[in-house]
Amino acid sequence: MIAYRTILGRNLINDIHGGFRQVATIGFIGLGNMGSGMASNLLQKGRQVIAYDIVIDALSTLKGQGARAAANLREVAEQCDKIVTMLPTNAHVEEVLTGPDGLISSAKKGTLLIDCSTVDPDLSLRMSNHAAKYQLKFVDAPVSGGVNAARAGTLTFMMGGAKEDIDQAEEVLLQMGKTAIHCGPVGCGGAAKICNNMMLAISMVGHSETMNLGIKLGLDPTVLNKILNVSSGKTWVSDLYSPVPGVMANVPSSNDYKGGFGSALMLKDLSLAQGAATRTEAPTPLGGLALQLYRMLCSQGHGGKDFGYIFQLISAANKND
Amino acid sequence: MIAYRTILGRNLINDIHGGFRQVATIGFIGLGNMGSGMASNLLQKGRQVIAYDIVIDALSTLKGQGARAAANLREVAEQCDKIVTMLPTNAHVEEVLTGPDGLISSAKKGTLLIDCSTVDPDLSLRMSNHAAKYQLKFVDAPVSGGVNAARAGTLTFMMGGAKEDIDQAEEVLLQMGKTAIHCGPVGCGGAAKICNNMMLAISMVGHSETMNLGIKLGLDPTVLNKILNVSSGKTWVSDLYSPVPGVMANVPSSNDYKGGFGSALMLKDLSLAQGAATRTEAPTPLGGLALQLYRMLCSQGHGGKDFGYIFQLISAANKND
Amino acid sequence: MIAYRTILGRNLINDIHGGFRQVATIGFIGLGNMGSGMASNLLQKGRQVIAYDIVIDALSTLKGQGARAAANLREVAEQCDKIVTMLPTNAHVEEVLTGPDGLISSAKKGTLLIDCSTVDPDLSLRMSNHAAKYQLKFVDAPVSGGVNAARAGTLTFMMGGAKEDIDQAEEVLLQMGKTAIHCGPVGCGGAAKICNNMMLAISMVGHSETMNLGIKLGLDPTVLNKILNVSSGKTWVSDLYSPVPGVMANVPSSNDYKGGFGSALMLKDLSLAQGAATRTEAPTPLGGLALQLYRMLCSQGHGGKDFGYIFQLISAANKND
Amino acid sequence: MIAYRTILGRNLINDIHGGFRQVATIGFIGLGNMGSGMASNLLQKGRQVIAYDIVIDALSTLKGQGARAAANLREVAEQCDKIVTMLPTNAHVEEVLTGPDGLISSAKKGTLLIDCSTVDPDLSLRMSNHAAKYQLKFVDAPVSGGVNAARAGTLTFMMGGAKEDIDQAEEVLLQMGKTAIHCGPVGCGGAAKICNNMMLAISMVGHSETMNLGIKLGLDPTVLNKILNVSSGKTWVSDLYSPVPGVMANVPSSNDYKGGFGSALMLKDLSLAQGAATRTEAPTPLGGLALQLYRMLCSQGHGGKDFGYIFQLISAANKND
Repeated sequence: MIAYRTILGRNLINDIHGGFRQVATIGFIGLGNMGSGMASNLLQKGRQVIAYDIVIDALSTLKGQGARAAANLREVAEQCDKIVTMLPTNAHVEEVLTGPDGLISSAKKGTLLIDCSTVDPDLSLRMSNHAAKYQLKFVDAPVSGGVNAARAGTLTFMMGGAKEDIDQAEEVLLQMGKTAIHCGPVGCGGAAKICNNMMLAISMVGHSETMNLGIKLGLDPTVLNKILNVSSGKTWVSDLYSPVPGVMANVPSSNDYKGGFGSALMLKDLSLAQGAATRTEAPTPLGGLALQLYRMLCSQGHGGKDFGYIFQLISAANKND
Repeated sequence: MIAYRTILGRNLINDIHGGFRQVATIGFIGLGNMGSGMASNLLQKGRQVIAYDIVIDALSTLKGQGARAAANLREVAEQCDKIVTMLPTNAHVEEVLTGPDGLISSAKKGTLLIDCSTVDPDLSLRMSNHAAKYQLKFVDAPVSGGVNAARAGTLTFMMGGAKEDIDQAEEVLLQMGKTAIHCGPVGCGGAAKICNNMMLAISMVGHSETMNLGIKLGLDPTVLNKILNVSSGKTWVSDLYSPVPGVMANVPSSNDYKGGFGSALMLKDLSLAQGAATRTEAPTPLGGLALQLYRMLCSQGHGGKDFGYIFQLISAANKND
Repeated sequence: MIAYRTILGRNLINDIHGGFRQVATIGFIGLGNMGSGMASNLLQKGRQVIAYDIVIDALSTLKGQGARAAANLREVAEQCDKIVTMLPTNAHVEEVLTGPDGLISSAKKGTLLIDCSTVDPDLSLRMSNHAAKYQLKFVDAPVSGGVNAARAGTLTFMMGGAKEDIDQAEEVLLQMGKTAIHCGPVGCGGAAKICNNMMLAISMVGHSETMNLGIKLGLDPTVLNKILNVSSGKTWVSDLYSPVPGVMANVPSSNDYKGGFGSALMLKDLSLAQGAATRTEAPTPLGGLALQLYRMLCSQGHGGKDFGYIFQLISAANKND
Repeated sequence: MIAYRTILGRNLINDIHGGFRQVATIGFIGLGNMGSGMASNLLQKGRQVIAYDIVIDALSTLKGQGARAAANLREVAEQCDKIVTMLPTNAHVEEVLTGPDGLISSAKKGTLLIDCSTVDPDLSLRMSNHAAKYQLKFVDAPVSGGVNAARAGTLTFMMGGAKEDIDQAEEVLLQMGKTAIHCGPVGCGGAAKICNNMMLAISMVGHSETMNLGIKLGLDPTVLNKILNVSSGKTWVSDLYSPVPGVMANVPSSNDYKGGFGSALMLKDLSLAQGAATRTEAPTPLGGLALQLYRMLCSQGHGGKDFGYIFQLISAANKND
């Protein structure tokens, strides 16, 4: 068990040798559903956090949990050694990092920027190059696991960056999650994330059409799911996240597709994957078609439902909704 | 351990109570790559087998292992209580069972027909109904596992049929494999098989395009495969059957895509799945597209390569072949 | 102007030389929406028609127009020189032609069978070979044009068969339509039909997604349609059959997608095309995906709407229906 | 007939009333395969042209035809009333227009910028808004027609912009082409272009798989093409640009797929269409799949061949290349 103490305004960590060493003050930008849970975990572990968000209420809530609230990005940049960003889109990350009074131009030399947003790996590379000009360090570390994992501190981080930066990032990330994987140089965290999620979408759509076909052929869905799980048709979806109501308890499909990972978020990740595929000229026929199907699902107004709802589009079970 | 003895021409089994009871003589039709291994296992377990195949050499080989060779289907039908068929296509099954001098019109009342061929579930249903008119019993039991599993006696059978017929079939099937799953009424064995294999093809294509995209984004293939396997992008393919040369030892992709499950066979199963999808009006967008891609692969002359060769079509790594 | 007279029970045609020659009595099997209109045209042109349908009402209606009603297929076969069949599926055609008391076993030697049903070209070939054993002639001649064209006698026929049989068929077909195209040997009529309709479905889906994208980008649909029609994006659909309400008058999309060519019929033709593609191992990626989309549309209960309704699935304009 | 005269360094046009009025000096940026032909036409029509390209040779060639060569963008901007840009990508356009010393910051108030590049309509909108801040006018006007049409002065322009700007642009554009269509406000020229080209790609792939299927079913390709052209399967491709060698003379498919519109260019346009589809959340299943197929074709090294070469990928006719 690691214990933290703050002495004379310095954040110290009781290390394994029994002594204390100073730990970095953490800046945190972006207190949405994910970010607020993540920052909250840092505070619970005893870290000093200076936070900023354009949404005042989000900032106030975290202040109530012990964080210091900054008035702007510059105030965060000037007081922290490591800064975590958790933002919704490419454009937000670009603005927060490179905009006028953004983090990169304001931060102290040597500051480590850890971007946990899910963005285009190419953007991460550009941000990293830009940061290097200011002698800043950059790691991209998007997460796997949703809002619940963010709150519980059980996220998985996919990290991209230089070995020495990764080590520094890991110390912070593991206070917000249970696993951190070094995927390669900068951009590789995001690359791994969008590759994984593209495969997840393909698994979900494929599993949904497989189950629907089997049901129409007379198979019991629970039996078919069991068969897939002992056969070569097994996927993470068939194992842990069935989109067919009634096959598994405690998954979104058994709760009217509430909670879980929203279809609109999956669509966003599939779009990032297609952007990367366009840039690298990588053919992704199934990934491209999965994107189209999620776009149809979202166009029909179901973007807020768990991404397993694609089973309903395919089975047309709710056609008379 | 079960021991068999043949006394006075009768095939007896030394049951768990220490006594002997008669066991059925097995008819076996179809001694191709799969069937010959399966029949061979029956012989090794001490069963009496009467076999038939239009290919004389195949029949001679099995005769050398102790089987009796029949001159035609009728001769098999008249002497057996249980008959296993292992044939390549719908048309072969229909001809062997319902053709003039076929099994159904020749068999003794009460004979159990066990069809291990991978065929349209609808055909199984029609065969079963036809057999019932002659007071015969019918079980469809296609296999999972390839030629090596057939030889080693480690196949998995997916059985469709009435409970009492399944029990009788299982006794025979477990002498040729390690697992037999009751999937539902007649046709459900084949239904489960083609559903599983459609999902497998989707996993393979999806995994291939995911790996190719990741590699183009700068990820190390072995690292990416590991990440997928601890994440939601995990599939049977990423776990046990990587199509990317060098990621796993002892899989076809590391042996020039030799051995394994041929692309032409996968195409056949995908065609069966699409036939069933057409009949049941089940949308299968990814399954349909996977079929098209395997058709392209086979059209380009790669039908004999393991189905993981789709990675090469997608990555165009062998474009200058 | 050609005039017909019936003398002593013989059907004569007043030929261009002023004399009379005997013309064939026409058998007509299948008096559905299409067939009834077609047979009615033959009667209006003065031909003797002996008709049969299992639906008594359909038969009575045609009798009221001057046809003779047969009690069964054999009665038609025995009295006619040319027999037209217009049936809904492969199975119906096979039964009517080769079933017990079917046309082939009952017809007089030399009879010309003209099958106007839309079926698998392979079935046509099998029927033709079977007919040849009985010294009958066979032409496949599926139609282009819907119910209105059948009633108006303005259908287009796509004919497959030997040159001399085609000439005999054409004489009859041009009394029910305005054009008859010789596509090649037996089966080529059907082949041309399903190829054309697969392309039509692709054009329709492609045009629908193009229009929807353009509208979302701010283009006026009428302007975009005009631009396509003077550019390389022109198709029969953009020219004559816009699926976007308001772009063209007098097309189904401007009449709530009523009339026209039903989505379920398009799905049937796409299924025939995929069957042929499977048999010939022809990759059809867009044709295969178009089939999946029409299957989704029909699964959602829109099979009765004109096939242009796919625009609504894509634009989700009616998502709150 | 309009005649131009240059008097005292002023470019005058002999208008329909018999008098002379001054016409704008034209700036031209981007002298690639397309741009050099276009600028050459302006010179042939008697216009004064001040040109710039980073490729010195291209600039020299045009100078030899009577153009004035500028040393940089600023020099063009300061001397022209209308400036045409013809550049390969989004990034080039953004840099030329908004970069330091780019056109927008250097141009005289009231200058009309005419961008003929094929770019994202959203970029055109941003450029237009930026130009407006400097009191410049902006029209997007991408072209239809390839290198030959650029040379011959027979291009079609798809224009997006305000009515009064369009009128000014048209005067210049019609000296480089035969048709100019007003598609809507700024961005609509590009929108129409990418919509048209997405539909063209779908037509090309669909037609290719239709022809291949028909040929495998025994149809003569020339006969099938004729049937499509009198039926609902007609497209611009079947009418004027067959990708099947031997069906039409004077098209790239009859010249080893040389000339024409390169597959890599089609891939670029499909990528722009998918970018726009992502931004507007417009489902484009066939457009998305066509992109994947062109990406596969280009990955296999065929990006330089005419886009009709997709027929070869589908028919695998050259599989042993």
